[in-house]
Amino acid sequence: MSKKACVLLAPGAEEMEFVISVDVLRRGDVNVIVAGIPNSSTIKCSRQVNIVPDCSLADATSKGPYDVIVLPGGLGGAQALSKSEEVGKLLKEQDSAGRLIAAICAAPTALKAHGIGFGKNITSYPSVELQLTEGKNYTYKHDKVVVDGNIVTSQGPATAFDFALKLVDILQGNKKACDVAKAMLMTY
Amino acid sequence: MSKKACVLLAPGAEEMEFVISVDVLRRGDVNVIVAGIPNSSTIKCSRQVNIVPDCSLADATSKGPYDVIVLPGGLGGAQALSKSEEVGKLLKEQDSAGRLIAAICAAPTALKAHGIGFGKNITSYPSVELQLTEGKNYTYKHDKVVVDGNIVTSQGPATAFDFALKLVDILQGNKKACDVAKAMLMTY
Repeated sequence: MSKKACVLLAPGAEEMEFVISVDVLRRGDVNVIVAGIPNSSTIKCSRQVNIVPDCSLADATSKGPYDVIVLPGGLGGAQALSKSEEVGKLLKEQDSAGRLIAAICAAPTALKAHGIGFGKNITSYPSVELQLTEGKNYTYKHDKVVVDGNIVTSQGPATAFDFALKLVDILQGNKKACDVAKAMLMTY
Repeated sequence: MSKKACVLLAPGAEEMEFVISVDVLRRGDVNVIVAGIPNSSTIKCSRQVNIVPDCSLADATSKGPYDVIVLPGGLGGAQALSKSEEVGKLLKEQDSAGRLIAAICAAPTALKAHGIGFGKNITSYPSVELQLTEGKNYTYKHDKVVVDGNIVTSQGPATAFDFALKLVDILQGNKKACDVAKAMLMTY
């Protein structure tokens, strides 16, 4: 059965981190659904690129469970993900079942807002490090991609390819991740 | 007066190359218009990400001229750009005025289709090298980004950040390109 990913898309999402995640996962033969927050209307991203989700978050949730839920960064996007009760419910179910949750850039702040991954190693965009370490809920690492159990975190635009390829590696194996990287003219 | 870019978005465009170009140029304070081909309807990209252009190509053309016209890759997208007479007309006007034209991945094939940049150094995604060198219209280089006069070309997803940062460098200066790179956690 093919692996399934749900990528959350909220207004103010960083469009490069969003698109690289979706594109690389699809190149890795992962079945990706783009869930719009709050609904399936066109989303204006952080640099004004307008993207149409595949469906609303409610629709996406009804089609789960997913092997991974991906949270792209962007300050506005991360704040919207932090404030959404629906997102909190989805992440808590995903976490308690031990399935993967992946967040990049500012999006680890949404994990904190919903009480996800406490006690684990994480990383993020540098500007939100203090917000994440306050309260000592996490051990903060300065690595491009950090994997700790079911929580995968990463730093920002420059590490978005590494982040997405790591997810392909975990879900589909190292050979598939290397093949996808090669077709994009990079190494993994 | 602020610099202006027109990024062409056709069905089958490589969404990472498209989004990285738009996002990085906007981070570099370039005024970017996304022109939909054939019109302003939602465009399905190469990995099924749905993006809404800012306007149709005809509307974008009426708002020109642009300091740079950017052609993202993706085989389907490049074919659509190659076949469009409107795109050919816009590129020929841009070229004869000596203004920048930038193409990445498979998109240099659209330059060839419209007779743009003959005699110049170019690069592309490896799979279209033969198509570009046939007829000896170009000198082919195996570099990440090739600048020859007003023609900028690049290889593919792995080089999309270098490609977009080079455009910021040319339009806004080296310091701006370095600042944009730093905020994305990379060096330029």
